Amino acid sequence: MILALAGGVGGARLANGLAHAVAPGRLTVAVNVGDDFTHLGLAICPDIDTVIYTLAGCNNRDVGWGVDGETWAFMDALNALGGPGWFNLGDRDLAKHVLRTERLRQGATLSQVTADFAECYGIRQHIVPMSDDPVRSVLETDEGELSFQDYFVRRRCEPRYRGIRFDGADSARMAPGLAEAFADPSLEAIVICPSNPILSIGPFLAVEAIHGALISRRVPCIAVSPFIAGETVKGPAAKIMRELGLVPGAASLASAYAGLVDIILCDLDDPAAGRRVHGLSFVASDTLMRDLLEQERLAHDVLNLALSIGSRT
Amino acid sequence: MILALAGGVGGARLANGLAHAVAPGRLTVAVNVGDDFTHLGLAICPDIDTVIYTLAGCNNRDVGWGVDGETWAFMDALNALGGPGWFNLGDRDLAKHVLRTERLRQGATLSQVTADFAECYGIRQHIVPMSDDPVRSVLETDEGELSFQDYFVRRRCEPRYRGIRFDGADSARMAPGLAEAFADPSLEAIVICPSNPILSIGPFLAVEAIHGALISRRVPCIAVSPFIAGETVKGPAAKIMRELGLVPGAASLASAYAGLVDIILCDLDDPAAGRRVHGLSFVASDTLMRDLLEQERLAHDVLNLALSIGSRT
Repeated sequence: MILALAGGVGGARLANGLAHAVAPGRLTVAVNVGDDFTHLGLAICPDIDTVIYTLAGCNNRDVGWGVDGETWAFMDALNALGGPGWFNLGDRDLAKHVLRTERLRQGATLSQVTADFAECYGIRQHIVPMSDDPVRSVLETDEGELSFQDYFVRRRCEPRYRGIRFDGADSARMAPGLAEAFADPSLEAIVICPSNPILSIGPFLAVEAIHGALISRRVPCIAVSPFIAGETVKGPAAKIMRELGLVPGAASLASAYAGLVDIILCDLDDPAAGRRVHGLSFVASDTLMRDLLEQERLAHDVLNLALSIGSRT
Repeated sequence: MILALAGGVGGARLANGLAHAVAPGRLTVAVNVGDDFTHLGLAICPDIDTVIYTLAGCNNRDVGWGVDGETWAFMDALNALGGPGWFNLGDRDLAKHVLRTERLRQGATLSQVTADFAECYGIRQHIVPMSDDPVRSVLETDEGELSFQDYFVRRRCEPRYRGIRFDGADSARMAPGLAEAFADPSLEAIVICPSNPILSIGPFLAVEAIHGALISRRVPCIAVSPFIAGETVKGPAAKIMRELGLVPGAASLASAYAGLVDIILCDLDDPAAGRRVHGLSFVASDTLMRDLLEQERLAHDVLNLALSIGSRT
């Protein structure tokens, strides 16, 4: 069994590679919920939806989020009514938001709703939220505090990053499916996907039970760097690293993941490739994932690397 | 000033005729809320929306409800997720439901939301809900009690009608805009639109303040019969009348409207035309409204009739 922690587009892509590389039912993808928010009364879980759409093969490759062939009649009508237009809600996407909101209101957990949605999309691996309890990322910026979507969508990541907190993380419990994966005797490896270490993986690490489970792991944990040539394919990770005075690259992950991972898999031309930094080994591979073939290739690289360590422990 | 009470498609059509026949700002259309319900957590007001779409000239003439050029991507996705498919929510229509729900949650009244929506649609007459308090029609049928939409949409009006109650009517207040219209010294006439007397107008009459305002009116009140040749253009009014042992036709309105209206305007070939039944005069006109021209023609007939009585009082 393989456990992957994921958030964002890069995370979803490697999760998809792993989903194809691992036998059905043998992969658990735990997904960031720090980006989740309530908008127009609707429970919106962008990272969970991105993972579902990507693993279902119906993600929208043009805009990088949402579902393929999406339409926008709802947004047109909402804008005509003077409703908030800064966060786009696609007609198809809305069905998930509305049904999820209703089911949560009726007492279902986010885990249950997510599992049911994944099944409806024909996904044969386990997709679980990192927690069924709300954990909400709040960014400290030069424009003051901004909730995640305010920073990410409304302000297009333009404000300068100063810090982050995860409201609710102190009391949040690990989702049952994630706890089961950590405890599964057949667990062979943990993979931290090439997601933003602060915005996408930070919320996981802020939950004490998840942090503790990574610390006390008995299987290899491989993190995959999201940086390629000092940038990322999507998202503000490189910008944030620069704002923190760090050089964007795999080495900048070392402090975030120290003690939690055994090896960082970085891109071939990353300066850290083949080196040890802060006690962490950096192994190089081609980490660009433009299509399913490249997603599967990287997944196999990660799994082979994990098994090679696993056999040594 | 003219006040119209309306519900359903026929009500919206005459309301539209009146909206064109009366100077801007001089018509108040009070709309039935007995059909309103909460579905998937969304506050849905079918009759208000039908009046808005009809007066905005963008009602869907094919299906008889909803907005012209509607699309159904949301419903397709909802059905794929195993969500409830019995009540159709169009992509454009959803914007009203979602925004209305959010604004009501934030403390706005249904009157405020309705006025804002009407303004966004460029409507220059007043559209008000009959009440800002919930009034919910519950039908007694041979299949037991059914909420309005269960009867009307899910069961397609097939169960046999036995009776109706209006939950919340006892404590519901008249909406401020309706109270203002009744009290307006320039009010010249009240029109009860050709709506279902039980399902669409019944909720109005169940609110004591509205019933009382009709009883104590100082201006003519004209009801327009929804029956044409013993049937209605839309809706189950004729079926319900038959199930009550009545002959569908304008005369069957007499008991519902006795004491509340001065004259019933009925279709030219209605058996009651030109007669007095239960102390009510039945005046004939062509009541079929297939287009705006016919809506305006009937509106003028109603207004002329009202003014002819008004001058007599």
